[in-house]
Amino acid sequence: LKALWFDGKSLSLTGRPTPKPRPGEALVRVRLAGICSTDLAILEGYMSFTGVPGHEFVGTVISADDPSLVGKRVVGEINCACQSCQFCLSGLQKHCPNRTVLGIMGRDGAFAEYVCLPVENLHKVPDEIDDEAAVFTEPLAACLQILEQVHIKPHHKVIILGDGRLAQLAARVVRLVGCSILVVGKHRAKLDLLDGLGASALLLDDFEPDHTADFVIEATGSPSGIKLALECIAPTGKVVVKSTFNKAPALPLSRLVIDEVSLVGSRCGPFEPALRLLGNGSVSTAELISAIYTIDRWQEAFDAAASTAIKVLIKLA
Amino acid sequence: LKALWFDGKSLSLTGRPTPKPRPGEALVRVRLAGICSTDLAILEGYMSFTGVPGHEFVGTVISADDPSLVGKRVVGEINCACQSCQFCLSGLQKHCPNRTVLGIMGRDGAFAEYVCLPVENLHKVPDEIDDEAAVFTEPLAACLQILEQVHIKPHHKVIILGDGRLAQLAARVVRLVGCSILVVGKHRAKLDLLDGLGASALLLDDFEPDHTADFVIEATGSPSGIKLALECIAPTGKVVVKSTFNKAPALPLSRLVIDEVSLVGSRCGPFEPALRLLGNGSVSTAELISAIYTIDRWQEAFDAAASTAIKVLIKLA
Repeated sequence: LKALWFDGKSLSLTGRPTPKPRPGEALVRVRLAGICSTDLAILEGYMSFTGVPGHEFVGTVISADDPSLVGKRVVGEINCACQSCQFCLSGLQKHCPNRTVLGIMGRDGAFAEYVCLPVENLHKVPDEIDDEAAVFTEPLAACLQILEQVHIKPHHKVIILGDGRLAQLAARVVRLVGCSILVVGKHRAKLDLLDGLGASALLLDDFEPDHTADFVIEATGSPSGIKLALECIAPTGKVVVKSTFNKAPALPLSRLVIDEVSLVGSRCGPFEPALRLLGNGSVSTAELISAIYTIDRWQEAFDAAASTAIKVLIKLA
Repeated sequence: LKALWFDGKSLSLTGRPTPKPRPGEALVRVRLAGICSTDLAILEGYMSFTGVPGHEFVGTVISADDPSLVGKRVVGEINCACQSCQFCLSGLQKHCPNRTVLGIMGRDGAFAEYVCLPVENLHKVPDEIDDEAAVFTEPLAACLQILEQVHIKPHHKVIILGDGRLAQLAARVVRLVGCSILVVGKHRAKLDLLDGLGASALLLDDFEPDHTADFVIEATGSPSGIKLALECIAPTGKVVVKSTFNKAPALPLSRLVIDEVSLVGSRCGPFEPALRLLGNGSVSTAELISAIYTIDRWQEAFDAAASTAIKVLIKLA
């Protein structure tokens, strides 16, 4: 099968044997996969991953112990847990210390024609959600995790820092609360994608942080984002931290203490609510697709994802 | 009146005019004042404060608009708010952007024979609480703020980092929840003060952090404390940050995101619960008093507070 392979230094298109599902796993033919900022970070050494990257996908089940899944279109949760440790037994499978993570840690991912995942990680995609929308399920779920972790209320003021892939989806989710939203980014063209969503948008150069946001969602992907977040947040406010990178920014912790601000790390989220919001049209994603490439044109795809594009997809079937 | 005066560079004992209370303020004769780590930080430039430091005290009301207060023993909340801004009107007076803070920001403090505070900041001290206990009301309230901000449950595992003034009081408060507590510090003699409280104690050199604490209370007063806290905390756990200092430590934020850990800044807390716990004997403080000096011996007092002492008090009346 065709797969993108990262050897720890560079990515290349290779031919590899079709993976063999372990007990309890399904074999899935990947239809469409999305490039995420985490993938770009992995190519720079994040998580010291080697193997097939890619964790956002929609595919068709080829084989599974559960025959009702075979032939079905599915998306897949990325954390593969042991189901027997203290975290798994308390419902925190995604924090299982024995876990593998699709295309990120110890498990080959979705930039390949076939991928294996435990059956319990799969979610059937309703017919009304096409592939180009379904491929957003994983990052949309990650944005819904914000609302699982903090209680954003309709009267709150929320600032989203960043205008890229995750920031765009976060704006599309958080706006459903009815709160006031300001998105601050560096790219006019990306900010324009928020038109008609009822969120305000401002270029970073025109933005003056003033410690008035009840919540800040930090989705810049840059170490400088967290410092800006601390300049935006009001006393007793909460900063939801979404960016992952290898650097350790210096933080003025006394400000955190004096203003009793919280930093809330936020990662993966629930798939079923994401599928509901995609299915009922509450969250639009079509305008976020910058380009779709076949896997043979993977280099162009990754170049585009690393430049000013929003979501770049790789079509595999 | 005698007062300690910090001119931005050094502290000295001076004679100053007795302060004149503004409308709504009471004049209080200070009986006993405590030296806090924040005072030591102020002498190193924290908050760029100049004036009379000191914010932990018990005193006697000399004059006040409310005649029922005159002659009463009181302790005082340190944040003096405008009572008219959005924060004050929503009950967040301690975060009033127009506030002064006793002995910390824009208001002379309690290392003086007299001090002024708004009447609404004062709390009468019940007879069963002697001066040596009442002077702990302010830092004890700051520790109760931990329980106002996060929900520590009886089955939780809590690690307290630090064995100094605030860590000791935090242990005395959090133990009342019934949770498991481990205090990690650098000083055998300080850790021994926890004997009989039902908390475990460990020297830092003997401690191996292993990401298993549901909550970590960071009260080391050192920038390295927060990094250690991130090595102790379990996935989805919360680190309550109490230390204030001028430095900005570098933090591995990706760990925060991957493990969905929260950092919760925590400052001042509620006085009435602190007085209740001192009054009913649930929190013991006598063993934390290392020494009591008259104000004339302030230099010895500050030297002791900066060395291995726990709580050093200055007796003013």
